Amino acid sequence: MQIPETLNRLVRLLGKLPGVGEKTATRFAFFLLDEPLEFSQDLARVLLALKENVRLCSRCFNLTESERCRICDDLRRQNGTICVVETIPDLVAIERTGEFSGTYHVLHGAISPLSGIGPNDIKVRELLERLKSETVQELILATNINVDGEATALYLKKLLTSIDVPVTRIASGVPLGGDLEHIDKGTLGRALANRRPL
Amino acid sequence: MQIPETLNRLVRLLGKLPGVGEKTATRFAFFLLDEPLEFSQDLARVLLALKENVRLCSRCFNLTESERCRICDDLRRQNGTICVVETIPDLVAIERTGEFSGTYHVLHGAISPLSGIGPNDIKVRELLERLKSETVQELILATNINVDGEATALYLKKLLTSIDVPVTRIASGVPLGGDLEHIDKGTLGRALANRRPL
Repeated sequence: MQIPETLNRLVRLLGKLPGVGEKTATRFAFFLLDEPLEFSQDLARVLLALKENVRLCSRCFNLTESERCRICDDLRRQNGTICVVETIPDLVAIERTGEFSGTYHVLHGAISPLSGIGPNDIKVRELLERLKSETVQELILATNINVDGEATALYLKKLLTSIDVPVTRIASGVPLGGDLEHIDKGTLGRALANRRPL
Repeated sequence: MQIPETLNRLVRLLGKLPGVGEKTATRFAFFLLDEPLEFSQDLARVLLALKENVRLCSRCFNLTESERCRICDDLRRQNGTICVVETIPDLVAIERTGEFSGTYHVLHGAISPLSGIGPNDIKVRELLERLKSETVQELILATNINVDGEATALYLKKLLTSIDVPVTRIASGVPLGGDLEHIDKGTLGRALANRRPL
């Protein structure tokens, strides 16, 4: 291919983005070439600032640009309720519901024996330390409803029996708009087992 | 959304890439955050170098990092055959076939009365000047087979009647693997009209 080396290098780098192949990367590169110089400059500046400015909140391990994240700093949030999630995108998803006004604890992973990830590889110790120093009314385990997420929730539940804190788990069942006829049997079985009084 | 401002800015900029919405841009941003610092640095460096290093070939208007592009500089290419294309990606597509060993002329657009793009907005004058100074055996019009591409080809054909150069147009008809039953009637009509002796 007779395209200039700089463009080639850009295509190779953009091709590493998740879900981006050579064709899409080439399209991005040509787009960047057509845009005014300022666009590439802005993008370059933000890329360099990203790693420098963004770090993890010292309390909940959410992303932040200062010592504590905006949620931990927000006086209107209930400090007594902690929602434990696996990743930042999970936190963002829960924030988007607008249904939660407590604080978070981001584990940055889930326990996964198959991938060799144990409790020491995620922010479990930090959670325990936090529970010692803070007054907590409820700990919501909002790890994923899959093998690793369930294992992590079970592990945390066992670990926390010694501490006098109510531990809850997010509900699992038929999703909104879910059609019983087409839902997988695992989910349906779970929905039946977890039925609640109306 | 409680994500840091630097990350927000990155998401907004990445969201301007073609075909990328807020969700994909967020995914890219989190990916960049997880990658080692070097990746962001490399990307920033290439972005800044892009506009500086890459310019248009003074002869054919292909992309290049020097005065002339690699194709024009290549002594094995036949200078006497010029393939006229609308865009660089079109040139790249033809190069990929490996069927063409001549040189190119990139118009950087097509005549489009509806979009207000006339011959003076694309590299037509430059093509005429080139035809005056070079000895050309064949001019292949490889503009797109759509309204604008056809209009451009017709315009160029008329314009070049005064110059003694054979002008050809790429073939249009049923594509490879094309199933006559499912091909659109326009293409099939064209394929019939353009039939050639076997």
